[in-house]
Amino acid sequence: MDYQSILNEIIQEVTPFLKDGKVADYIPALENVDPEQFAMSITMFDGTQFTVGQADTLFSIQSISKVFTFTLALKFYRSNLYKRIGHEPSGNPFNSLVQLEYEHGKPRNPFINAGAINVTDALINYYGGSDIAYKEVLNFIRSISNNDLITCNEVVATSEMEHGYRNMALANLMKSFNNLDNEVSDVVQMYFKHCSVEMSTNMLSRAMLYLANHGTDPITDKIYIRESQAKRINAVMLTCGHYDASGDFAYHVGLPGKSGVGGGIVAVVPKLMGISVWAPGLNANGNSLVGTMALKLFTSKTGLSIF
Amino acid sequence: MDYQSILNEIIQEVTPFLKDGKVADYIPALENVDPEQFAMSITMFDGTQFTVGQADTLFSIQSISKVFTFTLALKFYRSNLYKRIGHEPSGNPFNSLVQLEYEHGKPRNPFINAGAINVTDALINYYGGSDIAYKEVLNFIRSISNNDLITCNEVVATSEMEHGYRNMALANLMKSFNNLDNEVSDVVQMYFKHCSVEMSTNMLSRAMLYLANHGTDPITDKIYIRESQAKRINAVMLTCGHYDASGDFAYHVGLPGKSGVGGGIVAVVPKLMGISVWAPGLNANGNSLVGTMALKLFTSKTGLSIF
Amino acid sequence: MDYQSILNEIIQEVTPFLKDGKVADYIPALENVDPEQFAMSITMFDGTQFTVGQADTLFSIQSISKVFTFTLALKFYRSNLYKRIGHEPSGNPFNSLVQLEYEHGKPRNPFINAGAINVTDALINYYGGSDIAYKEVLNFIRSISNNDLITCNEVVATSEMEHGYRNMALANLMKSFNNLDNEVSDVVQMYFKHCSVEMSTNMLSRAMLYLANHGTDPITDKIYIRESQAKRINAVMLTCGHYDASGDFAYHVGLPGKSGVGGGIVAVVPKLMGISVWAPGLNANGNSLVGTMALKLFTSKTGLSIF
Amino acid sequence: MDYQSILNEIIQEVTPFLKDGKVADYIPALENVDPEQFAMSITMFDGTQFTVGQADTLFSIQSISKVFTFTLALKFYRSNLYKRIGHEPSGNPFNSLVQLEYEHGKPRNPFINAGAINVTDALINYYGGSDIAYKEVLNFIRSISNNDLITCNEVVATSEMEHGYRNMALANLMKSFNNLDNEVSDVVQMYFKHCSVEMSTNMLSRAMLYLANHGTDPITDKIYIRESQAKRINAVMLTCGHYDASGDFAYHVGLPGKSGVGGGIVAVVPKLMGISVWAPGLNANGNSLVGTMALKLFTSKTGLSIF
Repeated sequence: MDYQSILNEIIQEVTPFLKDGKVADYIPALENVDPEQFAMSITMFDGTQFTVGQADTLFSIQSISKVFTFTLALKFYRSNLYKRIGHEPSGNPFNSLVQLEYEHGKPRNPFINAGAINVTDALINYYGGSDIAYKEVLNFIRSISNNDLITCNEVVATSEMEHGYRNMALANLMKSFNNLDNEVSDVVQMYFKHCSVEMSTNMLSRAMLYLANHGTDPITDKIYIRESQAKRINAVMLTCGHYDASGDFAYHVGLPGKSGVGGGIVAVVPKLMGISVWAPGLNANGNSLVGTMALKLFTSKTGLSIF
Repeated sequence: MDYQSILNEIIQEVTPFLKDGKVADYIPALENVDPEQFAMSITMFDGTQFTVGQADTLFSIQSISKVFTFTLALKFYRSNLYKRIGHEPSGNPFNSLVQLEYEHGKPRNPFINAGAINVTDALINYYGGSDIAYKEVLNFIRSISNNDLITCNEVVATSEMEHGYRNMALANLMKSFNNLDNEVSDVVQMYFKHCSVEMSTNMLSRAMLYLANHGTDPITDKIYIRESQAKRINAVMLTCGHYDASGDFAYHVGLPGKSGVGGGIVAVVPKLMGISVWAPGLNANGNSLVGTMALKLFTSKTGLSIF
Repeated sequence: MDYQSILNEIIQEVTPFLKDGKVADYIPALENVDPEQFAMSITMFDGTQFTVGQADTLFSIQSISKVFTFTLALKFYRSNLYKRIGHEPSGNPFNSLVQLEYEHGKPRNPFINAGAINVTDALINYYGGSDIAYKEVLNFIRSISNNDLITCNEVVATSEMEHGYRNMALANLMKSFNNLDNEVSDVVQMYFKHCSVEMSTNMLSRAMLYLANHGTDPITDKIYIRESQAKRINAVMLTCGHYDASGDFAYHVGLPGKSGVGGGIVAVVPKLMGISVWAPGLNANGNSLVGTMALKLFTSKTGLSIF
Repeated sequence: MDYQSILNEIIQEVTPFLKDGKVADYIPALENVDPEQFAMSITMFDGTQFTVGQADTLFSIQSISKVFTFTLALKFYRSNLYKRIGHEPSGNPFNSLVQLEYEHGKPRNPFINAGAINVTDALINYYGGSDIAYKEVLNFIRSISNNDLITCNEVVATSEMEHGYRNMALANLMKSFNNLDNEVSDVVQMYFKHCSVEMSTNMLSRAMLYLANHGTDPITDKIYIRESQAKRINAVMLTCGHYDASGDFAYHVGLPGKSGVGGGIVAVVPKLMGISVWAPGLNANGNSLVGTMALKLFTSKTGLSIF
């Protein structure tokens, strides 16, 4: 298929809508991003990339990082992870405390904020400290991206921490239910650090290859996780990857994916490719408005879908 | 792959667990079903069937009927259907009124009870009456099953109606929000009638072929719905097909599927086969305990998965 | 105290606000009421009445009837009543199903709709039928009002029934939890009949004397209920009498009271008087806007309060 | 009335039940309290006291302190206070985050934890710092108790802080909604300090006189707050003073009151007396089991009630 032409069509079709989204404004570092940016990248199993727009521009990956921390936690804790975190869609906004209280501090899944904070806590346990844990998460991201320059934007991380009351509330609530082992501020700080990692769509589409290829990097042959684990991560992306618009994403796009409030989205076509798209303006559910639109166009035009 | 051997293995492995499930006991007609029954059937695109257990025994399809009514409603109303019903996982039990009240009478998806009742209402509108609508639903089920003997068990339907207060509550609540057009009792009565249709796993696995094959029956070449619609139905089965255990089913089985409180489950492997399993004992979420187990074993043993 | 002068002041002060309320519009019979009407009546223990405005005009008492049905149910069932209905403020709108589902079909208190429907069911049990039960409720209202002409407006009752889907939903939900003994439609029909009783503020302020005087009519000396029961009914009026604005009413008015969606409010000053006010326009919580205002003025001006 | 004899009867009747309550066990300092203690005190407007049991034993007043901080906040901010805190019963447990999230960080009333934390924040604003604010709250408590030795138990305060994750969650959630001005940890620390004040039932029954006497201490004639404010505080105690058992307390006791998790309860009979009772064992709602029982007996035996 002529993916390059398809990407070229997509950027034409979505550009008029770039002004419609609303950039995340809860911290200054995100608020000041120019909303009229767009990028989309595809990475094939042989490393070939098709790209359009500002595919080398770095942006804050935010909740996309939850895919990477979940990968590590699942790798280390396997089914034991599910003593502390479920794998069900929540049916609620990403930062809601309601369900967390009703369900006694056990987050529904690793892709809502409470769940990702809990995964971070598990990784701090595993590595024996938040500094080393953060370093290892970053190493993992660099490894799957085959790029040692990837790093976190400390200004964003600090700013997140200064405005992170909602996440502090989630972490304290889990702690009150004995479902958080480390100091609340340590866990939330590390959580914000890996949310503040900056990558481009080129990097992210390449980073997703291990999930598209059932746990093994198709270029380096490095085995990151087992086949069954990779499939399960894809399943959780499909059912929970877009907060309370996950069903809509499955319905209209039909691929496992995960969005971030920085406007990025990653997705995989199993056994074929990694995808990433970026447009900073968000829709009402906190997912990239034009990014979602671009992915819908992509699967419509290509017929690619897991269904 | 030697599917027959795999089915033979599965029945061996699951038989000891048949006594652990709890048969639905809210109506006498279901309560008296012998829990120690099991059947599993696969139908390939050329019509070949692999079966094990009581694969010709009829049982109440219950919520599996929601797949068929949703198919017809989506075919007739297309995206207009989404003015009255969403397509998001609910994160709540199948018969909960909580979310329905908070969301002003619009059901989250067509596979929870409120959603299926609403779909029924839409079909009564389309066909111009509940008798003709029921007849057309039954004709559709007979057509996709290639079997004109399929019918509803009137005793079950009547008994459901006599104990259907929860569903009457859901229908009245939607009606109070002006999201139900016909008489509450008419709609609920028709809803219970198609829930009371009786089929075997052999019939159901064959009936799912149109969804496995993107809308077209691979044996008769009859086109029931468009490719994009079939994919969307599969997407909704994946995200919403097992109530508040949908994430778990996606996670462990990895196929679009739908369960019924009669103990049946249907699933599809896109472009390959239709599947049905039956074991009357349910787990805490109201899905067949051993049926779910059998499907987990099936995808583990075969490696089949959409992820 | 010169109550007549105080009432005269109040009507002056509230008249400009009569246009601000919103008349209940869920049924035609209520929608067509002229919003610019006002009446207020006080009845002392010796029968003296002070009145202002259209104090003889009949209006639909609606939820004020819940005080009377609760009185009878408490009299007959005493503490056994609390197996089916609580006496806690709900913190939720009067017709919400959310809490009723979470609390397994047991209504929080007898003054929200679910609770009053449940009380009605208990009275049908006690009297052995809904016709006789309704007749006895009406007799009780006539007796405490010392007025045999009081009756229900059948047009309103029928219209309520035709639009009563929300209450049908509540009744069906309770029935599904086995907390309703009689036929749903019978119970709801009787509920609507006593809601549709018509009275004036003169009648209602007189009818409240038995509660102001701890169970005994101070004029006829007729003993309706025990002293402890009367105090408890007053307590429930104070904590639950104005739906989710009950705290505000206690805070600003400081008297036990009960409102109805027809714009009426009743209140008592223990050991002193019965009060009723009427103004059809409602505030956002479904209580009479100007009626509430008038009662605030009344307790400010007189210093009367139970606190 | 012979109050002393009544108190003597009460202690006889309740003693067998002292073993049935469950002492608060969320911090060691409270967990180790001997559950088989009981005290009850009445203070009349002339200063006469009637007491029974260990009426001079100090205990942790806990949430009873909310009455005192609310008094000060209402005095200083008057109706402006209601921009940040409501005065409605919550219908939910005292430490729930659910309603706080649905209602955008505005607590239902000043007597649930979120509300009292918010009141504390308002007092820190008013006094210009948490140290001075705490000192002034303590001075107020000493003044209304006419006892300068009252102080806080620092061990309890520190222990509360170490286990106060739920309250930290509430404070962070309010902060995320911009309904908390000061640093979360400062506010929660001061909140725990005034919760850890220790008093006896003799002290507390005397301290309540200003509320029984409409804002003015009947012994010293000192005016603390206006009459209308005192009545309103009593109203909030009645509707919200016992968390989600407030309706039950109004129903069975019939007096404005406030409980604390240390096992203390205060109540007032307007224009007559202040009351305090103490028994450390709690019921399921977190109120003193035997304390509530003793107050029910007291109003049954004396006929005192605001209704």
